[in-house]
Amino acid sequence: MVASMPTLKVFTDLQTSPELIDWLRESIAPHQLLLPANPGGSILADVPTDPLMQEADIVVGQPRVDAVLSSEKLKWLQVSTAGFTRYDTPEFRAAMKERGIPVTNSSHVYDDACAEHVFAFMLANARQLPRGLKTRCANGTEEWTALRRDSRLLQEQSLLIVGYGAIAERLIDLLEPFRMKITAMRRTPRGDEKVAIVTPDQVAGAMGEADHVINILPDNAESSRWFNAERFGQMKQGAIFHNIGRGTTVNQEDLVAALKSGQLGAAWLDVTDPEPLPDDHVLWTCETCYITPHTAGGQFGEAKVLIRHFLENFERYQKGEKLVNRVM
Amino acid sequence: MVASMPTLKVFTDLQTSPELIDWLRESIAPHQLLLPANPGGSILADVPTDPLMQEADIVVGQPRVDAVLSSEKLKWLQVSTAGFTRYDTPEFRAAMKERGIPVTNSSHVYDDACAEHVFAFMLANARQLPRGLKTRCANGTEEWTALRRDSRLLQEQSLLIVGYGAIAERLIDLLEPFRMKITAMRRTPRGDEKVAIVTPDQVAGAMGEADHVINILPDNAESSRWFNAERFGQMKQGAIFHNIGRGTTVNQEDLVAALKSGQLGAAWLDVTDPEPLPDDHVLWTCETCYITPHTAGGQFGEAKVLIRHFLENFERYQKGEKLVNRVM
Repeated sequence: MVASMPTLKVFTDLQTSPELIDWLRESIAPHQLLLPANPGGSILADVPTDPLMQEADIVVGQPRVDAVLSSEKLKWLQVSTAGFTRYDTPEFRAAMKERGIPVTNSSHVYDDACAEHVFAFMLANARQLPRGLKTRCANGTEEWTALRRDSRLLQEQSLLIVGYGAIAERLIDLLEPFRMKITAMRRTPRGDEKVAIVTPDQVAGAMGEADHVINILPDNAESSRWFNAERFGQMKQGAIFHNIGRGTTVNQEDLVAALKSGQLGAAWLDVTDPEPLPDDHVLWTCETCYITPHTAGGQFGEAKVLIRHFLENFERYQKGEKLVNRVM
Repeated sequence: MVASMPTLKVFTDLQTSPELIDWLRESIAPHQLLLPANPGGSILADVPTDPLMQEADIVVGQPRVDAVLSSEKLKWLQVSTAGFTRYDTPEFRAAMKERGIPVTNSSHVYDDACAEHVFAFMLANARQLPRGLKTRCANGTEEWTALRRDSRLLQEQSLLIVGYGAIAERLIDLLEPFRMKITAMRRTPRGDEKVAIVTPDQVAGAMGEADHVINILPDNAESSRWFNAERFGQMKQGAIFHNIGRGTTVNQEDLVAALKSGQLGAAWLDVTDPEPLPDDHVLWTCETCYITPHTAGGQFGEAKVLIRHFLENFERYQKGEKLVNRVM
């Protein structure tokens, strides 16, 4: 800590145990922790803003956009999720830039869990787990023979990752012994990527060669409904589509059509639009559509990892170092 | 091929397509392929033996034990599965030894698929896929928070593999980037294993340290009901038990008790005793027991891989080289 730095006020709406809040308070001392009377927590919750936030130099959590914009003392905002859709507007970016407020997210906390989650999707599909766990068929029966025949090795299959970032890099590392043929799409290749990169205008060909296509696109104007009938049509017949990005990046009607026609062999979704889908949504009735309820980033001890991620960035902030996971 | 070798007669009861049978026939020419009128296929099927088998020099498939013992010309038997329980008796071994008949199995064909299958089990459990795929809970609800909290990273968890062989070695390779702490039990360590090895008398300690325990024991007198109340009691509370070996190596009543008491967090079984379990079996009612119907070795193109495995060994046989996957 820089000795001359005045005491900072850190406001958080993180929902966690009193023990972890105490740990956070002690870890930032002599700086001061401000807590709302009714903490929020999820990005989808929209609780009124506690007036205490107006006094904060630093906010960590999921504050309302209007509260951030009207906060007079704010010097740094750390969002406690990987997604930051509601902050990602030209107006908000302009306001933060004008006031020199860096915005960081917590994507680093979720990279490993998200990479493992979609890995679990791919392996569960390759080994036909949903069918296998449901049946009680006997060895040698027609159903059994079909189930064994439809089971695959993930090894040496091909994969296209749409959206190259930290999750993609982690996944590529985890998949290394599987010797999959991996390509990734990135809007602006930097040249230091771990796999072959295609840009959006080159993606059609890559789409047609992949056994598995993973969507990790962030939610923004360009990515809205990016996966549509045209993209699904470019894929190899029977390809497996995975989404651990955002539900809004998929045209769900087109997805249903691609599943029903057999153009897609299956869809594994951790995100939909909206979440959850209404009970009468047709995706619930697609036999080859598998949906987890936005739990890809979930992990035992998540709050602790989130706080540690903040404390590491807080240390950097005090030293004037470059913040990790800066998004604005 | 050694030019002076007389024409060999190869008998197979493999159930596959006419195209693959033609491929096999052409691949072994000028040696001769003998086919039964009614082919068998699964190790559990027990069809009468075609008298043609009596003329065979080489048998590949799942012949009846009595047919093997009474075959007068047999020079080599290749079993078309990894398991070979019905042949694995002192009497059969003695008869094969006396007549100088090598017995090989096809475990090599199934190593990759079995390793991927149990990998899929571990990841599906870590990411809580069965719960996630069943629920429609909304972000921020109590059920959702619990599901995210119960989700784990497989990375850096600990694993004990009971039964060290080709499947274990393959699995260890595939898991490498996950940096799991892996120990394996082997009756007679050779010193060239890829991970730390414990012998059966040292296993209790290793059992108590593992988050996941994988059973790949073969089926024989020593392994019968090896996993019993005592072993389950040695495990860490909440440990996950996996079985891709043989159902007979587990005392299923003790398994039920360990699941019901919470001593085991979950059981993932590809094998049971019998298969399938009767519809009124209590394991079907255990919420944390997940069963696939002996499909761990299944894979698209399995028959082709089996035939290729035989052809490679057939080449070695003709050259007088050491056979792969020799078990007797």
